[in-house]
Amino acid sequence: MTTEQVSIGIDIGGTKVAGGVVSADGSILARLRRETPHRSTSPAVVEDVIVGVVEELMCGLDPDQVLAIGIGAAGFVAADRATVVFAPHLSWRDEPLRDRLGKRITKPVFIDNDANAAAWAEWRFGAARGESHLVMITLGTGIGGGLLIDGEVLRGRFGIAGEFGHMQVVPDGHRCECGNRGCWEQYASGNALVREARAMVTARSPIAMDMIARINGDASRLTGPLVTEAAKAGDRMAVELLTEIGTWLGVGIASLAAAFDPGMFVIGGGVSAAGDLLLEPARQAFSRQLTGRGYRPEASIVVAQLGNDAGLIGAADLARSSVM
Amino acid sequence: MTTEQVSIGIDIGGTKVAGGVVSADGSILARLRRETPHRSTSPAVVEDVIVGVVEELMCGLDPDQVLAIGIGAAGFVAADRATVVFAPHLSWRDEPLRDRLGKRITKPVFIDNDANAAAWAEWRFGAARGESHLVMITLGTGIGGGLLIDGEVLRGRFGIAGEFGHMQVVPDGHRCECGNRGCWEQYASGNALVREARAMVTARSPIAMDMIARINGDASRLTGPLVTEAAKAGDRMAVELLTEIGTWLGVGIASLAAAFDPGMFVIGGGVSAAGDLLLEPARQAFSRQLTGRGYRPEASIVVAQLGNDAGLIGAADLARSSVM
Repeated sequence: MTTEQVSIGIDIGGTKVAGGVVSADGSILARLRRETPHRSTSPAVVEDVIVGVVEELMCGLDPDQVLAIGIGAAGFVAADRATVVFAPHLSWRDEPLRDRLGKRITKPVFIDNDANAAAWAEWRFGAARGESHLVMITLGTGIGGGLLIDGEVLRGRFGIAGEFGHMQVVPDGHRCECGNRGCWEQYASGNALVREARAMVTARSPIAMDMIARINGDASRLTGPLVTEAAKAGDRMAVELLTEIGTWLGVGIASLAAAFDPGMFVIGGGVSAAGDLLLEPARQAFSRQLTGRGYRPEASIVVAQLGNDAGLIGAADLARSSVM
Repeated sequence: MTTEQVSIGIDIGGTKVAGGVVSADGSILARLRRETPHRSTSPAVVEDVIVGVVEELMCGLDPDQVLAIGIGAAGFVAADRATVVFAPHLSWRDEPLRDRLGKRITKPVFIDNDANAAAWAEWRFGAARGESHLVMITLGTGIGGGLLIDGEVLRGRFGIAGEFGHMQVVPDGHRCECGNRGCWEQYASGNALVREARAMVTARSPIAMDMIARINGDASRLTGPLVTEAAKAGDRMAVELLTEIGTWLGVGIASLAAAFDPGMFVIGGGVSAAGDLLLEPARQAFSRQLTGRGYRPEASIVVAQLGNDAGLIGAADLARSSVM
């Protein structure tokens, strides 16, 4: 299909493995996707899926074309980019993933946190090109985060930086899957959107009537994409909920701006498909909440450009940059 | 007094200018301190005081000995280290301090945020020697912060990183001087300590009786150092209040650990004189609140070693390192 040098990116979520062949300019030349069982899965199962995806992607390529394999994983990845310390949605605990894959894959393998990979992709090929101080926020079921300063991923002492979703924003707030209460991702994420939508639908709130008709009264059909779609079609409850989520997003961004002072926040992940329905309330809350507002330059808040491919592209390109 | 090459450090707070002659090993060879009027002061007054302190410190030195002048200021300092963008306790707004001082001082001048300077000093000469990923937290009237990664101050895109004290920890919480509500420094700082102590004394809470006797019923005599001293002597109200402050400190540190994943937190500033009365509750709250606890390496939380001199020493040494 091509004779240029490529790298392969693998994006591992809680229930899927997505892989792609990525060129030097960030284009995806081929892609594959496999579902995986949720959470209870043994590490070996996910490992087999990864190896299968890599092998299938390499089929169409001359082996010499492939520079490296990059894995973006939804979890804590150690600073050595070899070990998954903890993955909440997978059964990996101190999993020496690079070594295990290295026995089965002949190319160099690098592991990264998926949001770090997304940050890298947006900086190299997307919304944050040229930005020296970038905070990436991926809004999916939870919140992922990545920090890029002068083209370097800020990984932290142990590799686990960027877990913004687990900063506490409400004392004694909603219980989080991480075991704490009041984590940011309980207020500004796809899960938060769905939880609140279900509560309104279940309570048969007057403002929920259009939504109830839309889902035939079955609250279990509520998903983040469905609420977003309804909001785009003008559903008032959906618009209100995205405004709430967006406001919490802006409040948290103001705290991150106080701490990091980036030039740009890039908002990615599935919920960012809501676009300005999410980002406008976020920008408003941010400008009300930023410390020193009016007396300082302010970061911009923009939507990601690479969508769901950011993790895959970033993982591939981080791996490429590590062997070049 | 000495023939070695030195730099001069100046630490500017809301109501004082402290200066010192600092050697290559971080020792203070001579020092001076001048009070300044609070807040309403025109920029020129503080500038005159700085120049006076520098001139007096240089009196005893051969001009060739002095490498540079470092200023640590309690405020937002632009990334160019020349301009004070905003200083809440001084009347500086976009003040071109380096240029103005440069007209009156013949040595190179560098401006830094005071907490960044303190972080640098603790890393070079104090509690954080050898630490690659350091978060410095200075608890004074408010909270100052600094980040040091691989020996580089993380300044942010516009120079204003590290304003941890203005991350929101309580929605609609206490009003902060910055104009927001619920800022961390309203819960974990010297001002918070004094506010709560005054509330208990004024309400004549049963637990405040010993404290009321100690201050002869005059709540205006309550200060942070007085409460700390009482706690060290076993006063129960004072111990409880430091436990509260320390708990809030630990909760905020857990959020910062989620975001930055440092290897060490160094706690400095006046309130840190309380030592373990503050730090033990902080460590306990941190280990209850850290996301992924039990499945990740954890940062240590230690008390600063350089006390109130950290800002002065750090400003001097940052200036030295900028000309060497």
